[in-house]
Amino acid sequence: MDNKKVVTFGEVMMRLSPPGHSKFSQASSLELAYGGGEANVAISLAYLGLHAAHVTRFPDNLIGRSATQFLRRHWLDTSMVIYGDQVIGKYFLEKGAVHRPSQVIYERDGSAFSKIEPGMVNWELFLKEADWFHWTGITPAISEGAAACCLEAIEVANRLGITVSADIHSRSSLWNYGKSQHEVMPDLIGGCDIVIGSEKDICDIFHVDPEGNENGFTEASRQLMKKCPRVKKVIDKNREMLSASHNRIQGKMWNGKDYFETPQLDVTHIVDRVGTGDAYAAGLIYGLLNFDDDLQTLKFATAACALKHTVEGDANMVSLENIQCLMHGDTAGRIIR
Amino acid sequence: MDNKKVVTFGEVMMRLSPPGHSKFSQASSLELAYGGGEANVAISLAYLGLHAAHVTRFPDNLIGRSATQFLRRHWLDTSMVIYGDQVIGKYFLEKGAVHRPSQVIYERDGSAFSKIEPGMVNWELFLKEADWFHWTGITPAISEGAAACCLEAIEVANRLGITVSADIHSRSSLWNYGKSQHEVMPDLIGGCDIVIGSEKDICDIFHVDPEGNENGFTEASRQLMKKCPRVKKVIDKNREMLSASHNRIQGKMWNGKDYFETPQLDVTHIVDRVGTGDAYAAGLIYGLLNFDDDLQTLKFATAACALKHTVEGDANMVSLENIQCLMHGDTAGRIIR
Amino acid sequence: MDNKKVVTFGEVMMRLSPPGHSKFSQASSLELAYGGGEANVAISLAYLGLHAAHVTRFPDNLIGRSATQFLRRHWLDTSMVIYGDQVIGKYFLEKGAVHRPSQVIYERDGSAFSKIEPGMVNWELFLKEADWFHWTGITPAISEGAAACCLEAIEVANRLGITVSADIHSRSSLWNYGKSQHEVMPDLIGGCDIVIGSEKDICDIFHVDPEGNENGFTEASRQLMKKCPRVKKVIDKNREMLSASHNRIQGKMWNGKDYFETPQLDVTHIVDRVGTGDAYAAGLIYGLLNFDDDLQTLKFATAACALKHTVEGDANMVSLENIQCLMHGDTAGRIIR
Amino acid sequence: MDNKKVVTFGEVMMRLSPPGHSKFSQASSLELAYGGGEANVAISLAYLGLHAAHVTRFPDNLIGRSATQFLRRHWLDTSMVIYGDQVIGKYFLEKGAVHRPSQVIYERDGSAFSKIEPGMVNWELFLKEADWFHWTGITPAISEGAAACCLEAIEVANRLGITVSADIHSRSSLWNYGKSQHEVMPDLIGGCDIVIGSEKDICDIFHVDPEGNENGFTEASRQLMKKCPRVKKVIDKNREMLSASHNRIQGKMWNGKDYFETPQLDVTHIVDRVGTGDAYAAGLIYGLLNFDDDLQTLKFATAACALKHTVEGDANMVSLENIQCLMHGDTAGRIIR
Amino acid sequence: MDNKKVVTFGEVMMRLSPPGHSKFSQASSLELAYGGGEANVAISLAYLGLHAAHVTRFPDNLIGRSATQFLRRHWLDTSMVIYGDQVIGKYFLEKGAVHRPSQVIYERDGSAFSKIEPGMVNWELFLKEADWFHWTGITPAISEGAAACCLEAIEVANRLGITVSADIHSRSSLWNYGKSQHEVMPDLIGGCDIVIGSEKDICDIFHVDPEGNENGFTEASRQLMKKCPRVKKVIDKNREMLSASHNRIQGKMWNGKDYFETPQLDVTHIVDRVGTGDAYAAGLIYGLLNFDDDLQTLKFATAACALKHTVEGDANMVSLENIQCLMHGDTAGRIIR
Amino acid sequence: MDNKKVVTFGEVMMRLSPPGHSKFSQASSLELAYGGGEANVAISLAYLGLHAAHVTRFPDNLIGRSATQFLRRHWLDTSMVIYGDQVIGKYFLEKGAVHRPSQVIYERDGSAFSKIEPGMVNWELFLKEADWFHWTGITPAISEGAAACCLEAIEVANRLGITVSADIHSRSSLWNYGKSQHEVMPDLIGGCDIVIGSEKDICDIFHVDPEGNENGFTEASRQLMKKCPRVKKVIDKNREMLSASHNRIQGKMWNGKDYFETPQLDVTHIVDRVGTGDAYAAGLIYGLLNFDDDLQTLKFATAACALKHTVEGDANMVSLENIQCLMHGDTAGRIIR
Repeated sequence: MDNKKVVTFGEVMMRLSPPGHSKFSQASSLELAYGGGEANVAISLAYLGLHAAHVTRFPDNLIGRSATQFLRRHWLDTSMVIYGDQVIGKYFLEKGAVHRPSQVIYERDGSAFSKIEPGMVNWELFLKEADWFHWTGITPAISEGAAACCLEAIEVANRLGITVSADIHSRSSLWNYGKSQHEVMPDLIGGCDIVIGSEKDICDIFHVDPEGNENGFTEASRQLMKKCPRVKKVIDKNREMLSASHNRIQGKMWNGKDYFETPQLDVTHIVDRVGTGDAYAAGLIYGLLNFDDDLQTLKFATAACALKHTVEGDANMVSLENIQCLMHGDTAGRIIR
Repeated sequence: MDNKKVVTFGEVMMRLSPPGHSKFSQASSLELAYGGGEANVAISLAYLGLHAAHVTRFPDNLIGRSATQFLRRHWLDTSMVIYGDQVIGKYFLEKGAVHRPSQVIYERDGSAFSKIEPGMVNWELFLKEADWFHWTGITPAISEGAAACCLEAIEVANRLGITVSADIHSRSSLWNYGKSQHEVMPDLIGGCDIVIGSEKDICDIFHVDPEGNENGFTEASRQLMKKCPRVKKVIDKNREMLSASHNRIQGKMWNGKDYFETPQLDVTHIVDRVGTGDAYAAGLIYGLLNFDDDLQTLKFATAACALKHTVEGDANMVSLENIQCLMHGDTAGRIIR
Repeated sequence: MDNKKVVTFGEVMMRLSPPGHSKFSQASSLELAYGGGEANVAISLAYLGLHAAHVTRFPDNLIGRSATQFLRRHWLDTSMVIYGDQVIGKYFLEKGAVHRPSQVIYERDGSAFSKIEPGMVNWELFLKEADWFHWTGITPAISEGAAACCLEAIEVANRLGITVSADIHSRSSLWNYGKSQHEVMPDLIGGCDIVIGSEKDICDIFHVDPEGNENGFTEASRQLMKKCPRVKKVIDKNREMLSASHNRIQGKMWNGKDYFETPQLDVTHIVDRVGTGDAYAAGLIYGLLNFDDDLQTLKFATAACALKHTVEGDANMVSLENIQCLMHGDTAGRIIR
Repeated sequence: MDNKKVVTFGEVMMRLSPPGHSKFSQASSLELAYGGGEANVAISLAYLGLHAAHVTRFPDNLIGRSATQFLRRHWLDTSMVIYGDQVIGKYFLEKGAVHRPSQVIYERDGSAFSKIEPGMVNWELFLKEADWFHWTGITPAISEGAAACCLEAIEVANRLGITVSADIHSRSSLWNYGKSQHEVMPDLIGGCDIVIGSEKDICDIFHVDPEGNENGFTEASRQLMKKCPRVKKVIDKNREMLSASHNRIQGKMWNGKDYFETPQLDVTHIVDRVGTGDAYAAGLIYGLLNFDDDLQTLKFATAACALKHTVEGDANMVSLENIQCLMHGDTAGRIIR
Repeated sequence: MDNKKVVTFGEVMMRLSPPGHSKFSQASSLELAYGGGEANVAISLAYLGLHAAHVTRFPDNLIGRSATQFLRRHWLDTSMVIYGDQVIGKYFLEKGAVHRPSQVIYERDGSAFSKIEPGMVNWELFLKEADWFHWTGITPAISEGAAACCLEAIEVANRLGITVSADIHSRSSLWNYGKSQHEVMPDLIGGCDIVIGSEKDICDIFHVDPEGNENGFTEASRQLMKKCPRVKKVIDKNREMLSASHNRIQGKMWNGKDYFETPQLDVTHIVDRVGTGDAYAAGLIYGLLNFDDDLQTLKFATAACALKHTVEGDANMVSLENIQCLMHGDTAGRIIR
Repeated sequence: MDNKKVVTFGEVMMRLSPPGHSKFSQASSLELAYGGGEANVAISLAYLGLHAAHVTRFPDNLIGRSATQFLRRHWLDTSMVIYGDQVIGKYFLEKGAVHRPSQVIYERDGSAFSKIEPGMVNWELFLKEADWFHWTGITPAISEGAAACCLEAIEVANRLGITVSADIHSRSSLWNYGKSQHEVMPDLIGGCDIVIGSEKDICDIFHVDPEGNENGFTEASRQLMKKCPRVKKVIDKNREMLSASHNRIQGKMWNGKDYFETPQLDVTHIVDRVGTGDAYAAGLIYGLLNFDDDLQTLKFATAACALKHTVEGDANMVSLENIQCLMHGDTAGRIIR
């Protein structure tokens, strides 16, 4: 079971951040890592023992190769990386604390990934032995080519009978190539089995309206499922933000029949807030592949998400044991010897 | 409005501290920065968009020039720095956590600044186009020359109609050149429009006694204003120290007519405690220059002070947006993208 | 009084840990220190002003000499270190946070210390002018030779009338050379005056059973004292683990007549959890050497233990003043200038 | 004399390089600096005591502001920096040694500077009190707008009677917006008084041919001066590359009448090779402003260039004394105390 | 041709070294890498574009997994790594300079690799599609199991018709499990096609004697080939050690018919001396797979070896272009842009 | 023999230097060490196995204690350190390369050591079991008290029959408390057995004149011995400074009868130039204590001096084996395994 194969697709950016809590105005060196929503999911799953392959496009130079090496180090199968052009997408991250927000500056325009075009990726080959395909709402927002390429992938996955999941969360500020998410996303989501997204995401994309329903999330999910009958579960989480250093996390799911919620997990000393949503998505995929029980899955994902807040960088590098331990209620953080 | 010009005066020290939470007994390198109460105020204001110039005296060698370069990096106008002698003031900082206090060791004796003398600074020139002059009670404690030079500045400022503010907080241990603050400070404070100081500071300096008054701060402020009729507002803050890692901050002001207090801000994960009072002073100056409303000013200053606890180093390098956001009650520390 | 001499005995390991909160899978450098339960106690006491000498065996190469240099830097008398063989014991530490546990991997097999044999250490010489000898339950678990050598030391100490203390906490996983702690430990504990250990430790070692007694610790201590009449006090602490970043500490003692408990100390932002038990033991030894009052001793030790959680590395490097301040209830962590 | 004012114009890039001699494939952090040919010249001159102002365009975000702060730290007058768009030009540098070449990867496409347009810079204002204007052949290669903006500057400088110098060295690979340097450069060089460039640069730009002349450099310079009668001196250097760690430098000049050469300087242990040509240009400008004698100027510039090889980063931060000492033949590198 | 597959076999150690030129007695952190003669060869070949897979045995814990991740990062196929036991082999490296020698301390006893046994590795599977198998004289010196396992591999390789190469250089101090290299090595070398080793190595292993022959290396090689008729080429290099910072390298080969020598390459500023022999071996394998000409192969290998002296760490991470450039005589180290 | 005890006396300064070759204007952290001419000698001797104790005076605060810890780490007996006042002497070091000189800025005025007074050190006790006492010409230059205290020590050493050596090299710029070295030094040198100093030092101190003698050093030494009949050997070295990165070293001695010179040692890649004279002095003391032959001593000292150029920091931390190897002509820097 653990050698299930998951394929993810999306941009991987160079991540540059001043050390510790210092600011760009103070920095004389920057921490270097690489990350992106979908690759973060793949890395998390690889640390849990799955065969995780990531499809992306890097510049054909030593920066592109170093990015690939980062993914390899963190267990990804990089045989599906393609190369071309000269610029890698980047983001700069200044880490906040307490009331001081973290700040992120993206530089994605003109990146090698943004220039991806349909036909560049051999999806038939890459998805041949996969069990799961995962994408996010960021990819179709990057460029027309990326959106088209993502649609290609979903169609092949559907044809091959592979489960498809999407994290449809998207920042509207990303959509700047002339199309709106309302125009592009519904077709893509139509090919999905599992959707991770908030009530607001669903409303923005589908122009639905939960109409003052008490549990808007359930109602929005219901309407989404009506429009996209392939979708079997809609999943989200509640995040209570006490400060940049202290959040509380709670998972929730509508599975077409029932609504579930996990107890809240209290993350009192956040180390790195980035990628916690991706850790949640990875936890869901792992759970859906391994548990029969939706609540178990949700608890597993919520524990994974909470743990990611304590890991430096974009991706969740904790062990299966760490997640299981927390999922079963052990919050003590006892030293393992 | 933002191009208002503020001039500050005081010693800038080399700050040397072991990395992270390590102790001097463990260190093999030290973090290097430069700071001092008045320059910290100037830097904070410069980050908020004001024209901030700092007057100080550095040794005439590459250390002195590097110190100037630090101030320039952080936006200060350094055209008023003068040079002479060979030694820079220093302080060593070992950062504490929870119940372990931070420890500071000063080395200011014989510094280039301590040897400043009246006549060395061309105040007429430097204050010509300024809108505000700020000094603190540390400067007159350093040496007779520094005190005299500070008095020169205040007199010129008064003559030119420039607003003068003083942070009169002073450690009595600093006064060791033969005069007491009671002898020296009243004349200096007499030239001020705005005073930042505690009930205790006022009592120590003016030998007044609030006589068991319910609100001692208000009563002490009243008495100060009687002795120094130019003073229009007396401002302080309450700091609840739960530990070296957790403080609560609340601003308060007596404006001659009313007493104001802000709600408490809860700083749950302190990154660097040093310079938080200077951030408060800078917030007050910014507020008084930009808001009509005293409570707005106080809230702005309290938010600035709270945010400084999360910034490495002596000076508050947060943005205007950061402060405004917190001032209006958003404590969530949401990532800015 | 402060020049009392304490001798400790045990393995010192090389400690290798990724910087900050990063994981081994992310590290390209490791922080280097040296530590071990008994040497940690000695270093703590040396920082409090005692003459502390540690007896251990290091490999006869530049790593062994660097380890000695680490002990010397932290004030230990290293004249009693002996050298032989080629490998130092090691442990790898990945620091956790919140729900993510720290992880420790030991490599002690075949270390220079594990090959120590009776006769290698000149106990008569080394203990001649000592006031106190301290060992822990880890040492006899390492190898038959180490256990025998420890027994030698205790016998000499008893003969010379030196107070002997033991921290009998032991991980059962350590005992893998063919003997159990039940076979080995009672003889060693029989030579002790002061025992630090939990109810469970006592039960595991002596196969006693507090029989559902309300205060199991007291009852277990009573039974231990019956079997080991030299033992005068049994001491333990309660640790409430809210998370890897937040613990609460409380000291407790049975002195043969009375049971004491201190108030809880709340360690809200843990910097380094390792060695906190050793800091507690050192606090106890200091207290028993310096205070007449058992509760004072317990409060001192609990404060020492709490403070260690805020110090990087294995050993408690805080000052006497830091501990006294906290012991007397000042938890504010006010900056010392 | 030292308060002469020099204005430079050109792109400033973020410089990211792995620490020491490590490679991108090994790096987990990158050293951060900012540099560009023209700003490097300005910084060098500022360290020599001149008033140096740099004109550039940075993105209007915290990265752009941090870049400005870097220039301010290194003494530049940044009042002429303009802001717009969102991306900063970048270069990645992997430092070589001996036979392993350094490797540079540029990312300049779409940078804020490349989008500069005529009319954006108020040249009349910025050049009003300047004594010298310096540009390089890189700027017109970046974009049509940058070339046009550079021409504006030269015309204003000519009108105001300001000396104009150009380093016409250019990588032909840079010219990719549809025009060749042969089309663009002659007009710009026509407005120059001082030209720094090689025989090959001149031939490529002007399509001249020194016709097998013994001293091709002199002949090419003669032909350049015929086409551009304002040009008074053409200057170049010989670089003997024994390896990436060992170069030899020699200055040379044709001043319209005489040809000069300096003795070779032997740089045996190169620390950072980048920006050594800019240090040479800065040395020439300083020399031409301060010495009557062309050979003195050339020796000064060659010494400045040699010293830059020993300074980390793009810009030459050595002192006037350092250069004078080497220029007068003292190669011993004796410690200055 | 570049997707030729090479399999290597041997121990990979954790490499711990103080930063820069500092000594263990000064270090508070250690640089972390992983390396071993055979894996170094594989990594070099992977950087040149070959499919390189390394067979080794790591401890079954997070250190073993981190070691695997290091190999993956540097492009190795790690699907053949097996896991067991708890300790990784290690070496400590203190880097010398000029007259100060580097110092290496090995800790290989009891490592997971040393406990490898015949039958643990599925050689039939792992070598099935390989073109080349490479081992070194270090492996059979580590333990009886390692020697037996190596013999297994060679026999399978011979059966499958895969080219086998060996670097038979061995430190006699390594052979301490009761057998001598004279007893063990000849059988292993008998299965080789290509041997890398010195005259002295051959004499020590085979107890041959070149009998005062003028070119002892050729004569020893001839005798080796007589005893091991499968061997087709014997290859070595001359290293002139001017100091720890300056070496000269020259390749040499006896191919059964002719003796070749390359010109000397002068490495004037050594960055890291470790692994230079492995870089040479990798160069030879690449050359033999890609060139028809033995001298070309030798020049390629010598250039690869020289370049490794400028790369931090154990393995040669330079590009094919770097080596070709030097091999063709370009020693200038010109910046690549 | 190796447990001979050497006592040294002098100021130990905090050494602060930017990392690598960077400049103060670039630094955001400083490397921290402690050093001083006499303590450097003691540390060198301690690394060679002697019992070395250093007498100095540190401030009575955590900086003074950290300085002591540094000395302890590097094997010194620190039982003779005394404490008082609040400021430690400091020096800032910016490391040069090739033609760029290193730059040192001292801050010694008002240091705890400069305030030392006769009577503060119990010389009778400290020198009781010593075999050798060493001082340098820096100490009497620091303050009148330091000079007087040094004279005390020499007188006690003479009375106890302990060999006294002095390195009389002194920077005239140091003498600024009102007395000249000509007034102070002769009395101190009168009590010495061994003098290390140049012809120029001797002439400056004693106002002698070698009168155009061919070998001025020998003649100056002769005249010194006439004035100070206790002196038995005068020793110096020649340093050929090819650049800041490349020096050549040669020892020389006049022993009252013969003049010796060693061959030159060529230090081609200097790592740290500071303290190389102290390493030479330590080599001389070791040699004079251990060899019968003056040339052997000189060769040992020259090798020690050459090796120090490759060690970071002030003190020579190489092993006896390293020095012996080089002294016997092995310059290859072969890796020690």
